Amino acid sequence: MTLILALDFGGTKLAAATVNVGSRQWLRYERRFSPVNANANTDLEIMRSLIHSLLQGTKPTAIGVSFGGPVDATTGTVRLSHHVAGWENIPLKNLLEAEFGVPAYVDNDANVAALGEHRFGAGQGYDSLFYITVSTGVGGGWILNGKPWRGAGGMAGEIGHIVVDPAGPVCLCGKRGCVERLASGPYIAQNAREVLAELPRRTPGKILRGLVQDNLELLTGQLVSEAAAAGDDLAQEILQKSAWALGVGIGNVANLVNPQLFILGGSVTKAGTRWWEVLCQVARETALLEVDFEIIPAALGDDAPLWGAVALAEFAIAK
Amino acid sequence: MTLILALDFGGTKLAAATVNVGSRQWLRYERRFSPVNANANTDLEIMRSLIHSLLQGTKPTAIGVSFGGPVDATTGTVRLSHHVAGWENIPLKNLLEAEFGVPAYVDNDANVAALGEHRFGAGQGYDSLFYITVSTGVGGGWILNGKPWRGAGGMAGEIGHIVVDPAGPVCLCGKRGCVERLASGPYIAQNAREVLAELPRRTPGKILRGLVQDNLELLTGQLVSEAAAAGDDLAQEILQKSAWALGVGIGNVANLVNPQLFILGGSVTKAGTRWWEVLCQVARETALLEVDFEIIPAALGDDAPLWGAVALAEFAIAK
Repeated sequence: MTLILALDFGGTKLAAATVNVGSRQWLRYERRFSPVNANANTDLEIMRSLIHSLLQGTKPTAIGVSFGGPVDATTGTVRLSHHVAGWENIPLKNLLEAEFGVPAYVDNDANVAALGEHRFGAGQGYDSLFYITVSTGVGGGWILNGKPWRGAGGMAGEIGHIVVDPAGPVCLCGKRGCVERLASGPYIAQNAREVLAELPRRTPGKILRGLVQDNLELLTGQLVSEAAAAGDDLAQEILQKSAWALGVGIGNVANLVNPQLFILGGSVTKAGTRWWEVLCQVARETALLEVDFEIIPAALGDDAPLWGAVALAEFAIAK
Repeated sequence: MTLILALDFGGTKLAAATVNVGSRQWLRYERRFSPVNANANTDLEIMRSLIHSLLQGTKPTAIGVSFGGPVDATTGTVRLSHHVAGWENIPLKNLLEAEFGVPAYVDNDANVAALGEHRFGAGQGYDSLFYITVSTGVGGGWILNGKPWRGAGGMAGEIGHIVVDPAGPVCLCGKRGCVERLASGPYIAQNAREVLAELPRRTPGKILRGLVQDNLELLTGQLVSEAAAAGDDLAQEILQKSAWALGVGIGNVANLVNPQLFILGGSVTKAGTRWWEVLCQVARETALLEVDFEIIPAALGDDAPLWGAVALAEFAIAK
């Protein structure tokens, strides 16, 4: 049996699993939250303990790794993490290869999740697709001609930072009206917070206010979705802006690259049917009539990066 | 010697040339304007006469064709022309193969020009690039991994119809604030016309007005560029909006696909250094800091589609 070790260094979670090549069932699976004030060293220590617990002395044939931040996939070196300190220029591939004595392959989570959905999830049988995760951030990963397209500098897929409304609010990246600024979970919460803070305590947003008992600091993207589902007008309006921004982004991508399929994953995609309806309608209106595409939900959920890590290792073994 | 016949069906011009494989000099070259009220049949008749005049009884090994409109590159069937009537579903590849008894390869002008610049022009030595033509319309063609990327339905590259200003003016395609609506030659002229029509006959736009002796119908994109170069404030402002729109588009494309290079051709790219400066600055501001790219002018000018047609035929011969 050819054993693959799959690792997922997320922003807040660490996961590791083993699988036999060709199988679609984990042999073993471990997941931990990063501690508060995690840094690269604590993350690596926790991952080591997960790995040793999984392997128990056996040796994998290859290691595939999903990392939650920019990575040089050629060298397997992490550029940085936006969530965890100390990851600057860590040669993750080399570290793992030295420690476990087998080849390791590292790429960023959006690229790896795209690969996972393509090989094992919603993208099976499609030759070209764009996977988008809409969660704390908004990122994407390409499959073109059946293979990952990472871009000349490994930076392709940054749909979160394309501008869809130059008159929109300022994003963390410094620009106005990025998709991420309008569509991500934390910004949905922030937008709701700002509107509620300015409104007198009256009808619009009443349900939303109730969910946090007027403590606006407690607002999250998920609560905005819940309030919208319960009929809160203000929450619905804010969610629709999120769906609109992502819909324009997707329509623009369709015109530019014309993939067969868009796969959407991440917590915000659970915002309800109305969010999906607006998104699909705006994407369709933004794309040219002659440009065909489908938009579907991801199938692998939180395990997409781990399954993508398996695919990354399988690719390498097959070479 | 292996002889290639290259054809260019433009919106207003028809061109044909012959070249030996491996050579970068035309053996023979012919160019004609389409007549007023041209249709597919008159275009085909003129092209036939150009071809016979070029070949004089000799037979090419293959024919490469650039067509100014959407094409199904797999079958070589023209979908339509936005400029010339009667091109709907014309099987151009089959027609040429039946008539000349050699293989023919047909693709749309933006894809073919991208290939031409990649093989023989400004894109030599680059593995990934996006060619953009900014002229009557705004279109683009991809080279990824050293090969054309046409999209799942052959529609990739439509940067002209990505939305960069949702509050902008309405485009022919029905959306607001498309790149083409803000950046193309005819729309630059239209924008100038509209502003001048509303302004009293005073200083702003005075130079521009003078160039057409107050007959606003005579305004063209080129005249707006000339007025801007001569110091006309209004013309400069309108041109900067064009450069801004294209700059946002290019920055968005850089974030999404991360090609090494953008090559810009077409009449509007002759609008002067200020247009280029604004465009490059806005593109740089729109792209993420980590995303590197170059923006350079096309090298082959009006012959890019013809040289691309040569590359298309060479590709096929090499297979």
